[in-house]
Amino acid sequence: MRAIVKTKPGVGMTLEDVPMPAAGPADVLIKVHAAGVCGTDLHIWEWDRWASGRMEPPGVIGHEFAGEIVELGEDARAAGILQGGDLVTAEGHIVCGHCLQCRTGYSHLCKRTRIIGVDRDGAFADYIAMPVSNVMKLHGIPVDVGAIMDPIGNAVHTVLEGVELPGSTVFVLGCGPIGLFAVGIAQAAGASVVVASDTNEMRLELARKMGAQLTLNPNRDDVVARVLDATHGNGADLVCEMSGHPAGHTQAFAAARLGGRVNMLGTPSRSTEVDFAKEVIFKGLTLYGVTGRKMYSTWNTMGRLIRSGQFDPTPVVTHRFPIESIADAIAVIKDGRAGKVILEIAS
Amino acid sequence: MRAIVKTKPGVGMTLEDVPMPAAGPADVLIKVHAAGVCGTDLHIWEWDRWASGRMEPPGVIGHEFAGEIVELGEDARAAGILQGGDLVTAEGHIVCGHCLQCRTGYSHLCKRTRIIGVDRDGAFADYIAMPVSNVMKLHGIPVDVGAIMDPIGNAVHTVLEGVELPGSTVFVLGCGPIGLFAVGIAQAAGASVVVASDTNEMRLELARKMGAQLTLNPNRDDVVARVLDATHGNGADLVCEMSGHPAGHTQAFAAARLGGRVNMLGTPSRSTEVDFAKEVIFKGLTLYGVTGRKMYSTWNTMGRLIRSGQFDPTPVVTHRFPIESIADAIAVIKDGRAGKVILEIAS
Amino acid sequence: MRAIVKTKPGVGMTLEDVPMPAAGPADVLIKVHAAGVCGTDLHIWEWDRWASGRMEPPGVIGHEFAGEIVELGEDARAAGILQGGDLVTAEGHIVCGHCLQCRTGYSHLCKRTRIIGVDRDGAFADYIAMPVSNVMKLHGIPVDVGAIMDPIGNAVHTVLEGVELPGSTVFVLGCGPIGLFAVGIAQAAGASVVVASDTNEMRLELARKMGAQLTLNPNRDDVVARVLDATHGNGADLVCEMSGHPAGHTQAFAAARLGGRVNMLGTPSRSTEVDFAKEVIFKGLTLYGVTGRKMYSTWNTMGRLIRSGQFDPTPVVTHRFPIESIADAIAVIKDGRAGKVILEIAS
Amino acid sequence: MRAIVKTKPGVGMTLEDVPMPAAGPADVLIKVHAAGVCGTDLHIWEWDRWASGRMEPPGVIGHEFAGEIVELGEDARAAGILQGGDLVTAEGHIVCGHCLQCRTGYSHLCKRTRIIGVDRDGAFADYIAMPVSNVMKLHGIPVDVGAIMDPIGNAVHTVLEGVELPGSTVFVLGCGPIGLFAVGIAQAAGASVVVASDTNEMRLELARKMGAQLTLNPNRDDVVARVLDATHGNGADLVCEMSGHPAGHTQAFAAARLGGRVNMLGTPSRSTEVDFAKEVIFKGLTLYGVTGRKMYSTWNTMGRLIRSGQFDPTPVVTHRFPIESIADAIAVIKDGRAGKVILEIAS
Repeated sequence: MRAIVKTKPGVGMTLEDVPMPAAGPADVLIKVHAAGVCGTDLHIWEWDRWASGRMEPPGVIGHEFAGEIVELGEDARAAGILQGGDLVTAEGHIVCGHCLQCRTGYSHLCKRTRIIGVDRDGAFADYIAMPVSNVMKLHGIPVDVGAIMDPIGNAVHTVLEGVELPGSTVFVLGCGPIGLFAVGIAQAAGASVVVASDTNEMRLELARKMGAQLTLNPNRDDVVARVLDATHGNGADLVCEMSGHPAGHTQAFAAARLGGRVNMLGTPSRSTEVDFAKEVIFKGLTLYGVTGRKMYSTWNTMGRLIRSGQFDPTPVVTHRFPIESIADAIAVIKDGRAGKVILEIAS
Repeated sequence: MRAIVKTKPGVGMTLEDVPMPAAGPADVLIKVHAAGVCGTDLHIWEWDRWASGRMEPPGVIGHEFAGEIVELGEDARAAGILQGGDLVTAEGHIVCGHCLQCRTGYSHLCKRTRIIGVDRDGAFADYIAMPVSNVMKLHGIPVDVGAIMDPIGNAVHTVLEGVELPGSTVFVLGCGPIGLFAVGIAQAAGASVVVASDTNEMRLELARKMGAQLTLNPNRDDVVARVLDATHGNGADLVCEMSGHPAGHTQAFAAARLGGRVNMLGTPSRSTEVDFAKEVIFKGLTLYGVTGRKMYSTWNTMGRLIRSGQFDPTPVVTHRFPIESIADAIAVIKDGRAGKVILEIAS
Repeated sequence: MRAIVKTKPGVGMTLEDVPMPAAGPADVLIKVHAAGVCGTDLHIWEWDRWASGRMEPPGVIGHEFAGEIVELGEDARAAGILQGGDLVTAEGHIVCGHCLQCRTGYSHLCKRTRIIGVDRDGAFADYIAMPVSNVMKLHGIPVDVGAIMDPIGNAVHTVLEGVELPGSTVFVLGCGPIGLFAVGIAQAAGASVVVASDTNEMRLELARKMGAQLTLNPNRDDVVARVLDATHGNGADLVCEMSGHPAGHTQAFAAARLGGRVNMLGTPSRSTEVDFAKEVIFKGLTLYGVTGRKMYSTWNTMGRLIRSGQFDPTPVVTHRFPIESIADAIAVIKDGRAGKVILEIAS
Repeated sequence: MRAIVKTKPGVGMTLEDVPMPAAGPADVLIKVHAAGVCGTDLHIWEWDRWASGRMEPPGVIGHEFAGEIVELGEDARAAGILQGGDLVTAEGHIVCGHCLQCRTGYSHLCKRTRIIGVDRDGAFADYIAMPVSNVMKLHGIPVDVGAIMDPIGNAVHTVLEGVELPGSTVFVLGCGPIGLFAVGIAQAAGASVVVASDTNEMRLELARKMGAQLTLNPNRDDVVARVLDATHGNGADLVCEMSGHPAGHTQAFAAARLGGRVNMLGTPSRSTEVDFAKEVIFKGLTLYGVTGRKMYSTWNTMGRLIRSGQFDPTPVVTHRFPIESIADAIAVIKDGRAGKVILEIAS
């Protein structure tokens, strides 16, 4: 079968012909229809410090996808819940099920997590084998949308964690694809005010399409002052920190209300100077580090918000490429010209 | 000044000329612009068992209102937050501030609660004196809507308590005014499915206007089966029990999903036979008794949902009467012809 | 191997020689050392309405146990977490992993739950095969205690659900083994006041041993008045309803404070008349139906409370029998002479 | 009356003869029996950057105290809850009651907070006037303990916020008086493991007296490694950061488990470099800034834990001085020789 493979350390990936994966007794084999291309894939392409420290080539890339079940292992079939022909997506974090985290509602933080497309073979391929426990039916969600539920789920996790959202004020700081999804999720989930910021005007245009009532560009606007204005001087109940920049952190803490919350998803590449007394303690702030998607309450809520039509991610999808054009997909992400990029694998 | 007074035990109320109320040091004096007429006022008119057991005439009736501040006591003025001319509404439950409940976030359940229009003089009058702590500025909410924030707040409390609403499935059982508000609040707060039931077709029409995707009439529909259908066989995450009927309770428990929640606001006049094993324990249900509005988080959320335009209660308002026509107002409520009824007091 | 089998409808069970169970790829085979005998087993012995409606003989009985792993299926071994020789206990509810409940933190309410000793072969046998996901190492907990972690877990679930226990006041109504465990758990978890009631004086003696500061006998005491006295007139923050009697329900609702919580575990055999207005709604109560143990946060907390020595269940264990004496074990439970009864299976 | 007054900018304070405070209509006048001396008082004595930026002399110092009610304003008396002769303590943060924070359960973060002994006259005096809403009866708690409920409340807030404490593992980093109280509160509230660290051996000795099972000295121990050892390699569920040092922050984040929580009370005097990716986001940590005491749920829980005897703060009290010896009290705090220091004002 075809697969995008990181064959060796260094820049790039290649389309290769590789053996079909084998499905174990508790696995299902899925024919991949579409996959999402993510910043993580760019890191692997570029072979940056994170990628070279984490991944051991060769391996098939890709962790966001949807497709059709073509085979079920013995145990997977016995469970009687999934069947051949089902259109499905999957959580790409494969966890141990036995550690403290897995046993107490924190499986998304399992120490033994193996991520598809990073720690084991991934989804930029004609077929992928997945543990049945990670697989969920699309139940009417289009395959293209199913292919990007992984990052939509990151946004759902960031927006809904620890906050009673209806009636709240939300500031999304950073409008990459996950930030843009966060804007739409906040809107769908009943936020009264949604403010978004980014330095890229194309992204701010998408943020408005996704429902932001106010968009700010830190190159032009006093972001914190404008968020305070938009919230009657209080600051935002929830700041979604999607930028990963130290300057973003500082803005996030300043823009949150007294007693507010900053859910942090953007992955910084360097450290931030924090004045905890002024920025966090005297403000009574809560900071929360967002990793992955809660398994599987995030997926359940996400499926409902999509199926009901409350949330539509499609405005964020700006590019589609066939699997052969992975280099082009990576290039548009690198250039910052893209919203979400989809790889079309099966016709 | 004019006031609707329950002068003595027995049926009825009368418009009387009474002395202006005096504002103590921590009080504000409010010129009432509009007031909501409620089922409680009907009970007092009819002098039923509850009313005759609770109220001691004479007293001015009415507990839902909005108006304008015309005078502030010394302490109220010193606080510097409210001023003459402010348009305001108020929480009608006056609580002690010192009991276990008041000290731990349950003031709405204060044992020493005195309700305006029931335990002390109320708002169907030209003026009312209120403790400054109970008074909130309308900040742009129309006075007519401010006048009915008390029952809207009941709905907000019922819909949002103990549930993560975004993406959830909600069944509102009973579509009197508070049930109708609950439909709109659930919709505004990001529910994915909102089902409503009542035996009164006019109310079901209003429920559709307020955003119910499915309306059911127990005289015609198998309510529980239809709720299960509308929720992929799961049952509703949240049932808002607004009917107060034993049959409603049974339906509510049956229509809730395994692990779901039934928030109960409708006040029953008689007892219900409950098979706790089957209806509650084996289902892992949570039942919650809704009293009043949480002080004051409910008011804060409500204000935001109204000001943003997410929630509009006006379709529920079917009748308006001048203060002199209190008997007509009571009559339309008694007949079941009304949604919400407003008394216009100041022009 | 030896096993206690319900061979056919009707009263009784018998010790039989049956084939060893086979362990599937995701299963472990466990040599049972000890097992707990439970009210459920009495129902099955008596073949009452519940048992005859639920169970289909023949089947091996018993759902509470601990023992030693003697064999692992291929997948179970591959996971690398459990090994031959490990001393373990197990959650006896085998769930589907895919339904709404399993996906959102409510697996203890999975609609497809199959309970060992009821819906499939159980633990009153020399060996039992269990899915590896249900099995947990004892990590130093004695096997005798491991054998009764199922009902201790019921108590942990009842005491800790929805309440911030430290400093709280707890009333345990009904002192069968799970009620007695609840007394000890409440004490270990930082309750400031623990009151227990039962009509059986031997059980009240055990309740005092488990840490109840006040024990009440409804045949002698005005239970509600005494709970109010013990809580400065407020009522209990948490009532654990372990009796399953309609009279217990009424006392539970009356003894809970305004805004309090009644966690209901006792399984009633008939219905209760509830005056929801007075007993629940005006009090702002929360009622919660307790089923099983939360998977697996309850097990984690329980393990810690036992290993640290904070909670010691052994005073509750009053009888031990060899597997051959199952009839005697059932008899002492039926007579009400027993606390917790253990079946010793392997020497 | 006598009072310790900061008469002017610069080092020191003096005992002065000042007029009795006047009690307004909603105030009570309290004869102070004992008061706690706190790090804040040391800052004011030293007139450091914080003190000189915040305080405007002259003013009476002291914010932790207990005493006897000697006079009630008209409204305070009318409420009928407090009476002359009542032994009381008080929350020293006087809040506005109307802002977003005051209205939604975050009064401890009210933007308009005025702290006694800092922003208005304080408690190192024969008498103090306090708003009745801030005053609570001791109900049997000794006056000496009542005098230090302010900092004990800080500890209760830090230990119980956002964590289900029973069965949890807690690491208290920094054993000044509030850290020492935190050790005792964690123990009383059902923690299974309590570890404490400090560089001062006298404080570690007190931590052991307060119930720490393991005490660590960062000058000698690899603190993070030892906390991991004590928690089966998981890290602590809750880290109470009481040191305010950047090195403490780094240890706190490293010692918390995946998905754990760091409640931060220690006030840093400088900023910390945080690698949010590694230290917070990939670990799924929650950080929370602790300010004051939750009004008044913290006080309620604290009162119960003290009255029941579960928590005894007295081992932490190392010094007592008469009001005249304020300089000595400040000196022992500055030297680090002291646990908690009490000023005895009335005999």
